[in-house]
Amino acid sequence: MSDQLDLQQYSVRTDLALEAREMATAQHGCTIPGVMEQVDEDRGIKVTRIDVETDAGAQILGRVKGHYITIEVPELRNKDTDLQDRVATKFAQEFASFLVKLGIKEMDKVLIVGLGNWNVTPDSLGPLVVENTMVTRHYFELTPDQVNDGYRPVSAVAPGVLGITGIESSEIVQGIVEKIKPDLIIAIDALASKALERVNTTIQIADIGIHPGSGIGNKRKGLTQEILGIPCIAIGVPTVCYASTIVNNAIEMMRTHFQQETNNTKQILGMLDEIPENDRLALVKEVLQPLGHDLIVTPKEIDEFIEDIANIIASGLNAALHKAVDKDNVGAYTH
Amino acid sequence: MSDQLDLQQYSVRTDLALEAREMATAQHGCTIPGVMEQVDEDRGIKVTRIDVETDAGAQILGRVKGHYITIEVPELRNKDTDLQDRVATKFAQEFASFLVKLGIKEMDKVLIVGLGNWNVTPDSLGPLVVENTMVTRHYFELTPDQVNDGYRPVSAVAPGVLGITGIESSEIVQGIVEKIKPDLIIAIDALASKALERVNTTIQIADIGIHPGSGIGNKRKGLTQEILGIPCIAIGVPTVCYASTIVNNAIEMMRTHFQQETNNTKQILGMLDEIPENDRLALVKEVLQPLGHDLIVTPKEIDEFIEDIANIIASGLNAALHKAVDKDNVGAYTH
Amino acid sequence: MSDQLDLQQYSVRTDLALEAREMATAQHGCTIPGVMEQVDEDRGIKVTRIDVETDAGAQILGRVKGHYITIEVPELRNKDTDLQDRVATKFAQEFASFLVKLGIKEMDKVLIVGLGNWNVTPDSLGPLVVENTMVTRHYFELTPDQVNDGYRPVSAVAPGVLGITGIESSEIVQGIVEKIKPDLIIAIDALASKALERVNTTIQIADIGIHPGSGIGNKRKGLTQEILGIPCIAIGVPTVCYASTIVNNAIEMMRTHFQQETNNTKQILGMLDEIPENDRLALVKEVLQPLGHDLIVTPKEIDEFIEDIANIIASGLNAALHKAVDKDNVGAYTH
Amino acid sequence: MSDQLDLQQYSVRTDLALEAREMATAQHGCTIPGVMEQVDEDRGIKVTRIDVETDAGAQILGRVKGHYITIEVPELRNKDTDLQDRVATKFAQEFASFLVKLGIKEMDKVLIVGLGNWNVTPDSLGPLVVENTMVTRHYFELTPDQVNDGYRPVSAVAPGVLGITGIESSEIVQGIVEKIKPDLIIAIDALASKALERVNTTIQIADIGIHPGSGIGNKRKGLTQEILGIPCIAIGVPTVCYASTIVNNAIEMMRTHFQQETNNTKQILGMLDEIPENDRLALVKEVLQPLGHDLIVTPKEIDEFIEDIANIIASGLNAALHKAVDKDNVGAYTH
Repeated sequence: MSDQLDLQQYSVRTDLALEAREMATAQHGCTIPGVMEQVDEDRGIKVTRIDVETDAGAQILGRVKGHYITIEVPELRNKDTDLQDRVATKFAQEFASFLVKLGIKEMDKVLIVGLGNWNVTPDSLGPLVVENTMVTRHYFELTPDQVNDGYRPVSAVAPGVLGITGIESSEIVQGIVEKIKPDLIIAIDALASKALERVNTTIQIADIGIHPGSGIGNKRKGLTQEILGIPCIAIGVPTVCYASTIVNNAIEMMRTHFQQETNNTKQILGMLDEIPENDRLALVKEVLQPLGHDLIVTPKEIDEFIEDIANIIASGLNAALHKAVDKDNVGAYTH
Repeated sequence: MSDQLDLQQYSVRTDLALEAREMATAQHGCTIPGVMEQVDEDRGIKVTRIDVETDAGAQILGRVKGHYITIEVPELRNKDTDLQDRVATKFAQEFASFLVKLGIKEMDKVLIVGLGNWNVTPDSLGPLVVENTMVTRHYFELTPDQVNDGYRPVSAVAPGVLGITGIESSEIVQGIVEKIKPDLIIAIDALASKALERVNTTIQIADIGIHPGSGIGNKRKGLTQEILGIPCIAIGVPTVCYASTIVNNAIEMMRTHFQQETNNTKQILGMLDEIPENDRLALVKEVLQPLGHDLIVTPKEIDEFIEDIANIIASGLNAALHKAVDKDNVGAYTH
Repeated sequence: MSDQLDLQQYSVRTDLALEAREMATAQHGCTIPGVMEQVDEDRGIKVTRIDVETDAGAQILGRVKGHYITIEVPELRNKDTDLQDRVATKFAQEFASFLVKLGIKEMDKVLIVGLGNWNVTPDSLGPLVVENTMVTRHYFELTPDQVNDGYRPVSAVAPGVLGITGIESSEIVQGIVEKIKPDLIIAIDALASKALERVNTTIQIADIGIHPGSGIGNKRKGLTQEILGIPCIAIGVPTVCYASTIVNNAIEMMRTHFQQETNNTKQILGMLDEIPENDRLALVKEVLQPLGHDLIVTPKEIDEFIEDIANIIASGLNAALHKAVDKDNVGAYTH
Repeated sequence: MSDQLDLQQYSVRTDLALEAREMATAQHGCTIPGVMEQVDEDRGIKVTRIDVETDAGAQILGRVKGHYITIEVPELRNKDTDLQDRVATKFAQEFASFLVKLGIKEMDKVLIVGLGNWNVTPDSLGPLVVENTMVTRHYFELTPDQVNDGYRPVSAVAPGVLGITGIESSEIVQGIVEKIKPDLIIAIDALASKALERVNTTIQIADIGIHPGSGIGNKRKGLTQEILGIPCIAIGVPTVCYASTIVNNAIEMMRTHFQQETNNTKQILGMLDEIPENDRLALVKEVLQPLGHDLIVTPKEIDEFIEDIANIIASGLNAALHKAVDKDNVGAYTH
């Protein structure tokens, strides 16, 4: 989210590859060439791995080529501590195997970048993760011979947002990267989702970095391997929705609902039943925006949700990055 | 909002009399017997005074008999300090004349009650107002001869919410009222609105107190003259919306939009075009709720909005309650 | 702390019975008639139980008759999670046996009162404990037949401070007590200590309630059995020190230090070596106060300390009050 | 403060040039060669300008050569809004003339660096100033032709502290400086004072940048013209004291106090009366430290103080840096 909200028109598309895939499937049929998908589910935690392997697949999906892991936990908003611990553990395992897949080595230096604004609750995920992450780089710099085995050099920054700093996050990160030369960037960001029920219940891991919007006049740069010269893993959690996507999504749910009851949904929903989803979203936006109704919204309980998810990600990262941290009891670590 | 969210089903109706009146007018035609309405507008601040004078009017409106003032400021979310000052001044003037209308005398003792939860940002309006209000009662108690002219005894409490205290706010307030015997209660509460654009842009003042939901099994009591034995003015600001009301409201806006373009909105919106608004809302709820989509949401920028509105109300109350505070330059007062 | 700071001159004495006893012993010799003391120590946690059994003892000590338990944990500021868990467990056990001693029965209703100001970090202990305590009273009220065994009705309020509410905390509590009729009050308050090293490392439990200062013109009432008609346990944690007590205490430490090195401490410390401690404190105050130097201070890390101690007390109370909560693994409970 | 607290022994000296000068004068007599001092006082605001012009003077003072402005406002803790506005205005004027003196031109690009930790209240000054400063650089970058006259490009970052980032603040700033090429750095930091009454009442401006401690093994670098290649102005506010300096300072005050009453202070204070101040401080530290008593402390009301001062500095900087902001009514600007 971070900077992008200030200066750029969000695309009609979602930030989640999973949702992009759902939309593409709805339009293009069940299999998308060059896009592989694998799903695991275990006691309330669903893991979907999507690999976008070809340019053609990327184009259909509207997503950059790369590997996407989505962890969905519909019950995550219920304050169940046990479930939170299991999610942190799952996240740590998935993230650790992602590191292996990308060829990241045990002692490779990691810089965690917490994007977003710590004063705007739904945008504070990145800074909150930074605060709760175990950093070790300074021990390697100052007293290298005293660092125990099983730890790697990890550092973490929260660069702030354009409206507060006057500097693109990506410029700040580039400056720091050139100075401290990490081997890997992990960027944490809050996302927009198309579905309110995914907000604060879903974590996406992707090896594609952070891509800025592509609108006209957008001079800002992202956090990608191309720009930074090192791999960049993005961790994203949807924390907000556009009102228009809530409306559009609700109409879609009504369609599905009535299809189970009648074979004439057109009678109920009129033209809304027929036009493609993206056109319908455009229509909704066209109506809502001029009236100031297309606000970005977040659940009322966001203060608590965002803290819980930040703790899950921070403790998961601590376990995934440091061999010495127990990967089977991740939750115990962070307070 | 406060307690009510925890234990009770919100009615399909809005917390705002203004919206109730709009809905009633849509159904029943332009004039509702026993309901008087007067509107003023001045440089972006619209004041609507609704008097519900008869039981018949109350029933049609679905609101308790009484006087309702609604201050609407669509641009209030734009961080315009001058506008905020003008709203605080307007609020102070309206509130002061409301006091006169109710027969509250210059030295009558006032207890301000800030309902809600200070840890849940969109529900923290009441406690925030309490923090920023000028209290004077203790000076009258401890050093009565040293209190300057132009001040009345004002006290303020934030009783907390049922989930944190285990006690109904109304029981706490009753206990305090019996102890300190104020002449007037002013209760501040966050509300739910039917329209996202009213969230954080609207202030309602009403002399009806706080009425709890009327669902089956609801043993909780409100803050009303009937219960407390003294007048009770409620100040409410919508800070949240149900997702379902956003959807329902958007469909209504689409109807209006297409009516301007075509005389066949039924073709576009199907049955949605025809069924009464409340039935349509019930339908939307029926679809969204089982899927966990009918969350209560708040604008992403809620942290800043809520602070701004709390300051407006606190400085407005300070000016309205104490003759010694300048009513023409209200904003200067509170930090 | 709470209200008392605003309107009243702190006595030269400490809020801690333990420190009062140390001072009395220094002046009056090793045994004080009518004052019993027993000390346990286990892996960094020292528990001192002081029983003030006679009026004579009370007068010498300058403390009300009653039972005082002090838990001292010098290493508590070191962020050691294991130690924190052990302290919470110890606190729960001591508190539970205190309840038995006072004849509190298993299903007796408890009201927890968190004194202090949530906006002033070193004074926010009470409100923080209230937020983290498990309240159950509303379940007993609303759905009594669904409450599991092993729980008692517990409620909790944070009445705020005089400067913000304009009402004495004790009046608010009395009003609530008359309304909900609890069998026991537990009041949490931040204290002033004479020794900076006791700040945030010490917890005092006492069955004497909260006594207001006794200065002239002090019309305010405390929270005591005499006033409320039910037993009142006070839990206090020193979170602040007067600068003057830091200075006075340091001079005392210098005396002790030099006594080990020389038999002429008078040469080093002059008259400061000879005058009684209280006179010396008065002297220090006399010098510092007119210069604005006798501020109340708190350790720089207070934000973190206060949260840790609030969690310890809240989880300890949860375990001590509800049989169903495991008393041997207390820390696991609260987040 | 920031990083330095974590890894380095504070010197016995103060962070304030003014206090260093006072100590040097006490030891070396009234005039220090190469050190010029000029004092203005106006309605409760005292401005002291100290120019350390020679190496000899720098050595005696124990401060780097350069220009130091100290603004002292003993009443600043009294929540007097008018006084706060006057201080902000004075700060803006002094800062603006400082810029002229240093040859900073009207359109020179400025980077504000807010050192410190936003989670540790007395160390959050820098990040708070960053949040409240008006940044403009992004407008110059993105829409240069739409920027009004009277503004210069200003950016602002809060690099965080070593314990949270694992990276020296100075490395982060160097990276950013190399990327965005400002013409001037303004670094805001919380300081330690020797006198509790200076805490939160004093602002120091100096053109010497931030110098790290000089202890053995200190590999960290500061923020200085030498390192960064551009001028670096440091703004510092004392927000904490060592307990030992409070004690030492109190003994000094007692000396002064008794000198007015007797000609035999030695009788009262013994050896403490005679030994030089720094030796006495070392003695106090020697006694307090092993007992865990030499904590760093801050006034109990730090939450409110730090916000007030951050607002003063932010609004002062806004006026000093941008010609278009009214320098005579500075307080009105920042909320």
